[in-house]
Amino acid sequence: MSKGTNEDFLAGLAAVTGPGNVLTAPDDILPFLREPRDLFRGEALAVVRPGTTQEVAEVVRHARAAGIAVVPQGGNTGLVGGQIPDASRPMVVLNLQKLDRIREVDALTDTMTVEAGVTLLRAQEAAEAADRLFPLSLASEGSCTIGGNIASNAGGTAVIAYGNTRDLVIGLEVVLADGRIWNGLGKLRKDNTGYDLKNLFIGSEGTLGIVTAAVLKLFPRPQGRATAFCGLSSPQAALDLLALAKAEAGGAVTTFEFLPRLGLEFVLRHAPGTRDPLGEPHAWYVLMELSSAAEAGLDDAMERILTAALERGLVDDAAIAASLDQRNAFWKLREALSEVQRHEGGSIKHDISVPVALVPQFLEEAAAAAEALVPGCRPLPFGHLGDGNVHFNVSQPVGADKQAFLARWEAMNEAVHAVVLRHGGSISAEHGIGRLKRDLLPAVKDPVALDLMRKLKAALDPESLLNPGAML
Amino acid sequence: MSKGTNEDFLAGLAAVTGPGNVLTAPDDILPFLREPRDLFRGEALAVVRPGTTQEVAEVVRHARAAGIAVVPQGGNTGLVGGQIPDASRPMVVLNLQKLDRIREVDALTDTMTVEAGVTLLRAQEAAEAADRLFPLSLASEGSCTIGGNIASNAGGTAVIAYGNTRDLVIGLEVVLADGRIWNGLGKLRKDNTGYDLKNLFIGSEGTLGIVTAAVLKLFPRPQGRATAFCGLSSPQAALDLLALAKAEAGGAVTTFEFLPRLGLEFVLRHAPGTRDPLGEPHAWYVLMELSSAAEAGLDDAMERILTAALERGLVDDAAIAASLDQRNAFWKLREALSEVQRHEGGSIKHDISVPVALVPQFLEEAAAAAEALVPGCRPLPFGHLGDGNVHFNVSQPVGADKQAFLARWEAMNEAVHAVVLRHGGSISAEHGIGRLKRDLLPAVKDPVALDLMRKLKAALDPESLLNPGAML
Repeated sequence: MSKGTNEDFLAGLAAVTGPGNVLTAPDDILPFLREPRDLFRGEALAVVRPGTTQEVAEVVRHARAAGIAVVPQGGNTGLVGGQIPDASRPMVVLNLQKLDRIREVDALTDTMTVEAGVTLLRAQEAAEAADRLFPLSLASEGSCTIGGNIASNAGGTAVIAYGNTRDLVIGLEVVLADGRIWNGLGKLRKDNTGYDLKNLFIGSEGTLGIVTAAVLKLFPRPQGRATAFCGLSSPQAALDLLALAKAEAGGAVTTFEFLPRLGLEFVLRHAPGTRDPLGEPHAWYVLMELSSAAEAGLDDAMERILTAALERGLVDDAAIAASLDQRNAFWKLREALSEVQRHEGGSIKHDISVPVALVPQFLEEAAAAAEALVPGCRPLPFGHLGDGNVHFNVSQPVGADKQAFLARWEAMNEAVHAVVLRHGGSISAEHGIGRLKRDLLPAVKDPVALDLMRKLKAALDPESLLNPGAML
Repeated sequence: MSKGTNEDFLAGLAAVTGPGNVLTAPDDILPFLREPRDLFRGEALAVVRPGTTQEVAEVVRHARAAGIAVVPQGGNTGLVGGQIPDASRPMVVLNLQKLDRIREVDALTDTMTVEAGVTLLRAQEAAEAADRLFPLSLASEGSCTIGGNIASNAGGTAVIAYGNTRDLVIGLEVVLADGRIWNGLGKLRKDNTGYDLKNLFIGSEGTLGIVTAAVLKLFPRPQGRATAFCGLSSPQAALDLLALAKAEAGGAVTTFEFLPRLGLEFVLRHAPGTRDPLGEPHAWYVLMELSSAAEAGLDDAMERILTAALERGLVDDAAIAASLDQRNAFWKLREALSEVQRHEGGSIKHDISVPVALVPQFLEEAAAAAEALVPGCRPLPFGHLGDGNVHFNVSQPVGADKQAFLARWEAMNEAVHAVVLRHGGSISAEHGIGRLKRDLLPAVKDPVALDLMRKLKAALDPESLLNPGAML
């Protein structure tokens, strides 16, 4: 594109959103072109920040007419680079943070209609203000947006009880690749009048349409909670504890997160104010929380579960939170885990899942594979045991060279993913594909599934204007 | 197609499935060409009954080569004619009942892999044999099949706690329109590696692909249950009771069905062995059940809910089941409802949903609209209050001519659906579109959504070989 048309294009954008919402100066757009792990640095003609769904549609139509691709972006917290444009062709970043209205909270119907740019935290708070729970919860909730959560089908720590983002969305408003707006913002729990368009856009990483608003499910706010931090000898013991807890408390098991001793050590070493709730070290730990709309009975249920687990030798020791402060302290041990790893040098990340029952076997084989590749490396698998979702991260050997270790990223991925695939697992359980794992996809995805995906992309975005280079 | 090619085609089918599985004699195929309400009578060259996924794929390829359309069929219990071929072009019925293997029950991963022709009842029993619950439950469960449940995204009486069929499916195996097999039978709770193909096929009524097997979610089997039959003065009181029950018992509210006095009268009159559990008549009734994996506490919770409801005037009287026999008797009052209506003459059916909070207003306006159209008609709205899903059926006036009343079917639909649409509702909450509501769709569906549906159909079945005339 010639410089002249480029300026025309930018002027057209400014006419849609106002000139203050079209950023082009390198310093202004830089924060939108880097992401949390600094794995990707993007290039863009501009960052445009529309304030309404209509403006989003107009930006898309304008970009389409000029042949410029559009990369939708929310809070820019994604971990696979799906929100960062690459240099393959001229692109603009369409940042949705200004679509930040909570359009409605309907406590009677247990729904909330929010725009894409609302942060997850604000959505949680709006639900709470209406005495309801919006259960999605993840590390970046202060800055990630509902639109990004939907585009990536975010998971987090409450999936075991409430499901992924997909399970929390009732309706969507989407700007399509041709600039039309699909208004699917119904508040119905049941509607069998045609294909499920909603789930096609959820998790599509902005490659099929741009989510501008959503109707979200609300739940009764938990009145009762019981939280325990348990020490165990093995992942299998943790799985058996989970089965016991589900048999005893069913849907009240709302958190079941696990981490190894190494993870707790990293946290105790690097996260100020943390302490080990248990007297002796244990090989593995589980953070288990029960919660329920009813106030009564949860402490008793937790007591019953832990007594039975101690008797059966599933749990070696456990502490039950006696106060809100103690609960928060337990949670901090889990939540600090993502952050503290960087203090221990390089860390190679995986976000995998296997069928729940196969997690112990996977952990053993994946650790052996990592050790075989880089002797002395320190596997730090943690995460959402109840979903079969393990963040199988691997920290560098103590004292090793960080860059030399990180240079093994792809080889390590390959070794770990080979174990994943042997167990019928997924190489991206909750973070998505984006640009980070795009080139891995053809090797791991069923070819028929991949062909169907390409057909769907061609049907909904024939000119490949939306987030080209992400996912496919 | 000439007679000669026709015979070649049938011979080709027989070569795939064996001649005994290709039915062509009118008496043999008749049962597959009529449906429960006898609203549709189909025409077909043959009914073919493959026994394996491979055979399904070969049948599809063979039909495609001959230009013959394929109508997938399970237990032939669908209520909108989606499983019945029409006369618009040459078709075969591909009946899946011989794909009836339960391939695996994995109690550790809480999944079950079953073929499309397994009846819902057999799937429930297989789960129970492994001490698990498969919660989907509907009137036709003895004969409807898992494949049909998935193709129609079946609802039923447990949606309030466990969701629709869509929410119970983890993986799918699908034969595509070109005869390829998509193996998506993973057992993963989380997998963000691409577009959500699964949900595209679920609820697509066999128009995008033929489901041949599925991985289904299993749940802990309820150990404790408490069941109450409540008399109330209004739908609003029922909604308030639901909110109270959810606040008190959360996810343990697994049934919340409602019916009017007229419904109970029909049942008492026509279903042998039924009796009114309450001393006095009430305008409305709710069947409420709590169930939970834990044995303890549900009777107490039910007592607390009903005591509070009686105090607040939400419930006028209630009976709690004191035995399994009594529980079954309460359930029979609800379950007999579908069948008894025919004893009271003609009945015009609707399967609608509105946002939950709007149900009372909808009921009032829809009853007025029906009465305005046919004075003396008897609205009998019942169903799944917690999902906003009302089977707004209308029985003929006492002593009126049945055929004359049924002749008003479309006019009645129009009047009731107009009220539905005013309340942001759906004209098919759980039964689907099929052939019965296909021509209504363009008038009620968002045109952008309808256009997206057509694009998806064209992308996945460009020759329109799969169930042409259903849905679109």
